[in-house]
Amino acid sequence: MSASDWQATRAAATPLSMSPDELARAVGHAMYDSDACSQALGFELAEVRPGYARMRATVRADFLNGHAICHGGLIFTLADSTFAFACNSYNVNTVASGCSIEFLRPVHGGDVLTAEAVEQTLSGRTGIYDIRVTNSAGETVAMFRGKSANIKGHVIPPT
Amino acid sequence: MSASDWQATRAAATPLSMSPDELARAVGHAMYDSDACSQALGFELAEVRPGYARMRATVRADFLNGHAICHGGLIFTLADSTFAFACNSYNVNTVASGCSIEFLRPVHGGDVLTAEAVEQTLSGRTGIYDIRVTNSAGETVAMFRGKSANIKGHVIPPT
Amino acid sequence: MSASDWQATRAAATPLSMSPDELARAVGHAMYDSDACSQALGFELAEVRPGYARMRATVRADFLNGHAICHGGLIFTLADSTFAFACNSYNVNTVASGCSIEFLRPVHGGDVLTAEAVEQTLSGRTGIYDIRVTNSAGETVAMFRGKSANIKGHVIPPT
Amino acid sequence: MSASDWQATRAAATPLSMSPDELARAVGHAMYDSDACSQALGFELAEVRPGYARMRATVRADFLNGHAICHGGLIFTLADSTFAFACNSYNVNTVASGCSIEFLRPVHGGDVLTAEAVEQTLSGRTGIYDIRVTNSAGETVAMFRGKSANIKGHVIPPT
Repeated sequence: MSASDWQATRAAATPLSMSPDELARAVGHAMYDSDACSQALGFELAEVRPGYARMRATVRADFLNGHAICHGGLIFTLADSTFAFACNSYNVNTVASGCSIEFLRPVHGGDVLTAEAVEQTLSGRTGIYDIRVTNSAGETVAMFRGKSANIKGHVIPPT
Repeated sequence: MSASDWQATRAAATPLSMSPDELARAVGHAMYDSDACSQALGFELAEVRPGYARMRATVRADFLNGHAICHGGLIFTLADSTFAFACNSYNVNTVASGCSIEFLRPVHGGDVLTAEAVEQTLSGRTGIYDIRVTNSAGETVAMFRGKSANIKGHVIPPT
Repeated sequence: MSASDWQATRAAATPLSMSPDELARAVGHAMYDSDACSQALGFELAEVRPGYARMRATVRADFLNGHAICHGGLIFTLADSTFAFACNSYNVNTVASGCSIEFLRPVHGGDVLTAEAVEQTLSGRTGIYDIRVTNSAGETVAMFRGKSANIKGHVIPPT
Repeated sequence: MSASDWQATRAAATPLSMSPDELARAVGHAMYDSDACSQALGFELAEVRPGYARMRATVRADFLNGHAICHGGLIFTLADSTFAFACNSYNVNTVASGCSIEFLRPVHGGDVLTAEAVEQTLSGRTGIYDIRVTNSAGETVAMFRGKSANIKGHVIPPT
């Protein structure tokens, strides 16, 4: 997909009455309402803007693994949800094609994690988003990089 | 850590009365019993041997994301748990330092996923494990690669 | 691209007179002849089969970095070339969309490296290939994973 | 290594007479002078500061692969060299433990590539650096993420 095709795709996904920020928020709320997984895990959507999202989660007892620290999979899941809200913020259905994560510090029960997703590149159907996960003390506990791919369809009706 | 240091570390972690296979199973059961996260998500430990593990999970309604398919984070979590059982199978406490995953097909509610972890290299404190996740039809839905690092301590008492 | 589309794409890329093994070798030789980079670096193509390739390289003085060990970029380049020969072996033009590498041991000048690429999955336009790089002593020095994407065209004329 | 241990390590690596910027430049020049690989490939070190480096390279005829575009391995090598200058800028010997790269656009012969490395985290012996590679038109052609590990020794004498 060329840059101009992406402009056309994005324009076709934007209701006439909404600004990009309003669209990102409307898409975020609609996605969150149907995201059974993020809800079941108690993830909160704190902010969403075009190409950007921020989420928060408390590390519950059922997030802990056999070493009595937070399961890396749930740190990944929080980052992956935040990635999803950022890369779907243009109302073009988008999924992850691949992700990598580096775990930098153990995370303990009761801590509150914040994940912040920032778009790094978006060209054609493919984007790269970086998600930094921090603990209550503001220390980085994990760095996540996700590669997105647009698929057919819209999160909310475009008209 | 040199190869001979690793042999010494591993020997010190092995109760005299157990074969490597018995140790791997004993460690697996002990870890699973204290792994609140894998239990809460309904992951089953199907098999564990030295450097190897296999787990199974049914995709529940609360695994689905805002696109009504299985959240990539939970596919990752299943693979990451399987990785943990494989890399801790020598009874030397081991954690993930980094992981990558490629998502190859969407996964739907009700499907049963199998994750199989195979050790690729183990030298000194660092190992690489590959985990393939397949659906009920035997199709590969994700490929995960994890890098492990030994830390202090044992999963079960070594003597 | 569905599995049956891929069968059709692959059939259209195969001259009638050639077996899959013959095609892989013919493609490999044609690609190698026009691969100025692999030639300039002295990489040898030792074997190519459908979905598989093996290459060899001697670590020259101009492969060394500021720590007097082999530059990781050239270990990557050897693995990436081997990946390219494996994923183009069906005569459907294919490029890397992303790769990761783990460096496990330092490599010294004069050593002879072998890289072996094995196809892990191939579905539709996308494949995953794992490349293990070993030194003369048979020790694994790096593990590379590449994700491939088919593009238009063929390496050699399909008819 | 704790944060205070890292402060001590870093202090011990810094000659009394140099500011952090001067040290980064001195280390960069010393490393470049002994980096046979970066020199042989014509990579230029454009800038180095603590935790930061920028390099430039012209895509030569011997950088092209069998598809007549720049070999991904050489794009990786440029990014990896830039990463090395950034993560060694404190004069503590540091190597890459693992890297990932996403290729976003083909690169043609004669183009001039710029790679810019920015430190994302540094805690204890381990750091994460992101390297963006752009072409002459300012388009991002690849995104690289490297994980660094400190080893023993210094690039230049610390006293």
